[in-house]
Amino acid sequence: MYKEELLSCHGRISPFVHETPVLTSSLINDKIGCEVYFKCENFQRAGAYKIRGATNAILKLTENQRKNGVVTHSSGNFAQAVSLAAKSLGVTSHIVMPTTAPHVKKEGVLAYGGIVYECEPTVEARQSLADQISSDKGATFLHPSNDIDVIIGQGTAAIELLDKQPDLDAIFCPVGGGGLIAGTSLSAKYYGQNCKVLGGEPFEADDAYRSLLSGKIENNETANTIADGLRTTLGDTNFPIIKSNVSKIVRVTEEEIISAMRLVWERMKIIIEPSSAVALAALFRDESENEGNYHNKKIGIIISGGNVDLSNLPF
Amino acid sequence: MYKEELLSCHGRISPFVHETPVLTSSLINDKIGCEVYFKCENFQRAGAYKIRGATNAILKLTENQRKNGVVTHSSGNFAQAVSLAAKSLGVTSHIVMPTTAPHVKKEGVLAYGGIVYECEPTVEARQSLADQISSDKGATFLHPSNDIDVIIGQGTAAIELLDKQPDLDAIFCPVGGGGLIAGTSLSAKYYGQNCKVLGGEPFEADDAYRSLLSGKIENNETANTIADGLRTTLGDTNFPIIKSNVSKIVRVTEEEIISAMRLVWERMKIIIEPSSAVALAALFRDESENEGNYHNKKIGIIISGGNVDLSNLPF
Repeated sequence: MYKEELLSCHGRISPFVHETPVLTSSLINDKIGCEVYFKCENFQRAGAYKIRGATNAILKLTENQRKNGVVTHSSGNFAQAVSLAAKSLGVTSHIVMPTTAPHVKKEGVLAYGGIVYECEPTVEARQSLADQISSDKGATFLHPSNDIDVIIGQGTAAIELLDKQPDLDAIFCPVGGGGLIAGTSLSAKYYGQNCKVLGGEPFEADDAYRSLLSGKIENNETANTIADGLRTTLGDTNFPIIKSNVSKIVRVTEEEIISAMRLVWERMKIIIEPSSAVALAALFRDESENEGNYHNKKIGIIISGGNVDLSNLPF
Repeated sequence: MYKEELLSCHGRISPFVHETPVLTSSLINDKIGCEVYFKCENFQRAGAYKIRGATNAILKLTENQRKNGVVTHSSGNFAQAVSLAAKSLGVTSHIVMPTTAPHVKKEGVLAYGGIVYECEPTVEARQSLADQISSDKGATFLHPSNDIDVIIGQGTAAIELLDKQPDLDAIFCPVGGGGLIAGTSLSAKYYGQNCKVLGGEPFEADDAYRSLLSGKIENNETANTIADGLRTTLGDTNFPIIKSNVSKIVRVTEEEIISAMRLVWERMKIIIEPSSAVALAALFRDESENEGNYHNKKIGIIISGGNVDLSNLPF
């Protein structure tokens, strides 16, 4: 079912999203002794992969639902993605953002035509305001990661990567709310040739690692990580997919994240956000803990986005 | 003569340099009302266009000259370019660097196999040590910008750009020692279709602007600019080429440089050095001073490099 849906989703969203490039770095290849293929969603519209899922979810609405608009809550990339996707499709978007969200992100949403509603920075306040807007306006609520249409949409980045490099041995991607890794794992299952999927997660927000251990959705006890996109937790739609299809979650330290981010900035001359650096840091750590494991292998990495606050860098 | 030489140079150096991508940004296009094509030499080997000229100059040496190695003095990109080009071609490189050169640049040269010689940070000390090495070792001196083989080599970036976008109305590039803009202007003359070449220069280091006004090579009175690659002055080989083929030099403020650099980092998600941002800043300024001049035009910009010190950013 998902197999066909991934392809039809890719066809459906293609007019509205970029096919991002796949880059390599001979220095990084030499460091690990393998070939690493970076799927650069930092070059995606609105600077992150999130527009894939947002576009798919909106395109799957009925004509009538589209007329009433969509609503979501997000302090980050999903807010901008929904506003831009909605704008491209002529749909009104209502975006609930915490008062603590960076000014630049609110401006981004406004620039893409989203209507911003501010709320207290708690999960309850966000959800309750979003619910209220949904009932007042008849707008459809879009969840950033726990919605099957969003998950399938996010999986299309890996479809494009595997189209260019069909014989990848593994794909690493960051794990936040679980939408990206769930979608990626479905693409690898149906369109890879025995391609594993591994997640990278900060020690500081290791809910997915612990969820796979315990077999049930765990919360984050801390979320004190520079990888701000990964502070969220898994959901009941994506967790079963992750449980069935993800081989392993590799946890990394804050130092490892910053060092991987710096390496990519300095050597590849591309801007990636800390959450994306988590995936590369996970590959480095897994290689060093299992030396030679990746020797001569072909590895994909999903660079999830490039939205960073240049006034607040960790270097 | 230069017409054929540009093409044969391109063929000669192609096995040793990357054909870098040409990128666009719809946001920047919308800002100016034209199409802007960025030739991304920040993705070049050693992070800058300089390897083109260095490779060409070394390939033009006789077998005997190559045996005795090459020598240059540089605190920046040319030092790394010569070491890497020499290494690729199996030639020994002697690199004179001032004691004040950033540690990271010395490490870069050493990593590429160059032999580093430290000297006092004056033009005289540099040249005298380079001359001494040249006479001691029989090594051929390579000038970073005032050597026709280097100039022709740097011109190949514009050849590739014009190959992809043959009908550019103009190309902007930064002006430092004059090698890049001289080479670019020859490529535009012989391979463009009525394609102008304009230079961008900081007000703080506007020797080329004043040289074109006075008709003779002027020195910089100050060089207090963030665009560290542009603090050098023109030479007697490149100045006549620039005088004949460059339409205009546009000067920009430090604020304009930083703002253009930030725009490219934030919106295009690529790392460009301040010197490269000067070219985009010059386009913005020339557009605002001559409103509508670039409307619906096709403009090329040479992004000269991406080597920045991440610990010392202007944001």
